Amino acid sequence: MSSRMAGAALLRHLGPRLFAAEPVSGLAGRGLVPVAARILPARMSSTAAKEAAAPEQEQQHGGSAEKPTAADGQEKTGIVSYWGIQPPKLVKEDGTEWRWFCFRPWDAYRADTSIDVKKHHEPRALPDKLALPDKLAYWLVKSLVVPKQLFFQRRHASHALLLETVAAVPGMVGGMLLHLRSLRRFEHSGGWIRALLEEAENERMHLMTFLEVAQPKWWERALVLAAQGVYFNAYFVAYLASPKFAHRFVGYLEEEAVHSYSEYLKDLEAGIIENTPAPAIAIDYWRLPADARLKDVVAVVRADEAHHRDVNHFASDIHYQGMKLKDTPAPLGYH
Amino acid sequence: MSSRMAGAALLRHLGPRLFAAEPVSGLAGRGLVPVAARILPARMSSTAAKEAAAPEQEQQHGGSAEKPTAADGQEKTGIVSYWGIQPPKLVKEDGTEWRWFCFRPWDAYRADTSIDVKKHHEPRALPDKLALPDKLAYWLVKSLVVPKQLFFQRRHASHALLLETVAAVPGMVGGMLLHLRSLRRFEHSGGWIRALLEEAENERMHLMTFLEVAQPKWWERALVLAAQGVYFNAYFVAYLASPKFAHRFVGYLEEEAVHSYSEYLKDLEAGIIENTPAPAIAIDYWRLPADARLKDVVAVVRADEAHHRDVNHFASDIHYQGMKLKDTPAPLGYH
Repeated sequence: MSSRMAGAALLRHLGPRLFAAEPVSGLAGRGLVPVAARILPARMSSTAAKEAAAPEQEQQHGGSAEKPTAADGQEKTGIVSYWGIQPPKLVKEDGTEWRWFCFRPWDAYRADTSIDVKKHHEPRALPDKLALPDKLAYWLVKSLVVPKQLFFQRRHASHALLLETVAAVPGMVGGMLLHLRSLRRFEHSGGWIRALLEEAENERMHLMTFLEVAQPKWWERALVLAAQGVYFNAYFVAYLASPKFAHRFVGYLEEEAVHSYSEYLKDLEAGIIENTPAPAIAIDYWRLPADARLKDVVAVVRADEAHHRDVNHFASDIHYQGMKLKDTPAPLGYH
Repeated sequence: MSSRMAGAALLRHLGPRLFAAEPVSGLAGRGLVPVAARILPARMSSTAAKEAAAPEQEQQHGGSAEKPTAADGQEKTGIVSYWGIQPPKLVKEDGTEWRWFCFRPWDAYRADTSIDVKKHHEPRALPDKLALPDKLAYWLVKSLVVPKQLFFQRRHASHALLLETVAAVPGMVGGMLLHLRSLRRFEHSGGWIRALLEEAENERMHLMTFLEVAQPKWWERALVLAAQGVYFNAYFVAYLASPKFAHRFVGYLEEEAVHSYSEYLKDLEAGIIENTPAPAIAIDYWRLPADARLKDVVAVVRADEAHHRDVNHFASDIHYQGMKLKDTPAPLGYH
C-alpha cells in the first residue's frame, strides 16, 4: 500500500521528466507509460534504510538485522530512497519546463560571432627545435584534409556530424589527464580542467544539434567507431608525451573545422543546401530567436570552433614558454 | 611600440587574475612580477593573424605572404590575440573579485546536511545471479577498510586528503566513458555525463579544501601515485565490464567515506582535534558563514559524500533493472 503510494508519488515526479526526456533521449516511439513501467519495478527493488536509532557502526556494516522495505525505511527515517532523487525542476525564461538533460539554462549562451574566423597560427618560420611540434601538428592536420574532402565533398551535414564525434574527444582527454594530475600532485589546475571539459561538452552539443539535421548512415557509424578507437588512444598518448603538440594539433584541427563550416555557410547562402529551420535544441542552447534557421546555427557553431581554436593555440603557446597550464588562468566560459 | 602597448594592456588584464591565482595555484612565494615576467615574453611570440582582405582559402592554408606581428594583426583585423583571451571578470555577492579558478560563483552551493548519513544499501539477500555484483562490491570495500584504519587511525585530515585523491577518479572515468559512448552511438546521455563529471569535480574540491588543512607527506604522495595508477585502470576496466558493479562499488565506498567523516566529526566534537577556522575556499564553495570552523566543513563534505552514495547506488539500481542510464534523467545538481 505505502509502496504503491510511493510509486504513484514517483510517477508524479518522474512522469513529466520522462516525457521531457523523450525528445532528447532518442528513443523514438516510446511513450510515457512504457518508460514509467520500466522505472516502477526498479523502485520496488530499491535500496533499504535502517532505523536511524541503531548505532552508526552497525549501520555502516549493514548488519544482519531485519530488513525493512524501502517504503518502511522511508517512513522510519524520513528520507527519499535513491529512486526518489528529484533533479531541480528547471524552467525556461518563458516559464515552460526545461526539456534538456544534456545542458541546463545557465549553460546556454549567445555565441560571439564577431570572432575572426580567418585567424591562423603560423607554424614558426625558424627551423629550430621549438618549431617541430608546430610543423608536425600543421602537416598532420593538412594530410587529413585531402581524404576528408574526397569523402564528404558537399555533404556538409554528414561531415559536421562525423567531425563533432572526433572533435569532442581531445577536450575530454585533456581535462581528464589534468584532473588526474591535479589529484596526483595535490595542486590546482588554474581552471584548465573545467575549460577543457567545457570544450568537450560544447562539441558534444554540436553533435546533438546536427543529429537533428542529419542521421548517420550505418557505414558512417562504423567509421566513427573505428575513428574513435584510434583517435582517443592516439590523442591520449600524444597528450601525455607533449601537451604542446596536442593542443597545437587541436588548434589546427579547429582551424580546419572553421573552414569547413564556412564552406557549409557558402552553400547555404548559395541555396545549394536548403536553409531549414533551426533545431529546437540549438535555439535553446545558443539563445537563438525562435525563427532561427540552419544558417544561424552553422554560424554559431563556427564561432564556437573559432573559440576552441584560440584556447588550444593559447594552451600550446603556454607550453612553448616552458610554463604549466595551471600557471595561467584558463579562459573559462570563453565563447 | 604597439606590441609594448599590447603587453602593458595584457598585464592590466592578467595582473589581477594572476594575483588572484596565487593563493590557489599552490606556487608558494611567487609574487605578481615574476609571474607576469614569465607571461609577457610569451605574448611577444604570440600567434599571427592575416589581413581579413585576403581570400579565405589562402587564410586557412596559412600561405606564405608576409607575416605581420600579432599586434599588427590585432590592429588590422580588430581581434584579440590568443594571449588576449579575457575570462569574464567574476565578483562575489559582496562585490569583491572572485579568487578561484577551480570553481565559479554559480558552482557554489549550500550543502543539504539534512540527508540521512546512516542510509545503507543491503547487498541483496537472495543468492541469485543478480546479487553477485552487489556482494562483490560490498566485500571488496570492506576488505579495504581494515588496512585503511590501521594506516590512518586518528589522522583524519591526512585520511581525508588521500581519500579524496581516490574518490575523484570514478566520476571522471564514468563521465568520460559515457561521453565517448554518447559520441559513438550518436545518442544523448540523459544528463549522466554531467552528473558524473560534477561528482568528480566536487571530490576534487574536497581535496583542494583539505589541502588547506593538512599537507601530504612525501610517502603519502608516493602512495597516491601508486594508488591512482592502479585504481584508475582498475575502475576503467570495471566500468567497461560492469557499470552495475562499478557504481555499486562507489556507492559502498561513499558509505565508508560518510562513516570516516562521522568519526572525524566525533573527534572534533570531543576536542581531540582542534576545530580550526574553515579555509577560505570552503567558505566560498559551500556558502558557509565567514566564521565557519573545520567542523562545519567536515559536515558539508560528509553531506556531499552521502549524495554521491545515493547517486551511485541509484545508477547501479538502474542497471539492475536492465536499463541504460540515459533512459532515466540524471540527478543533476543533486547536493
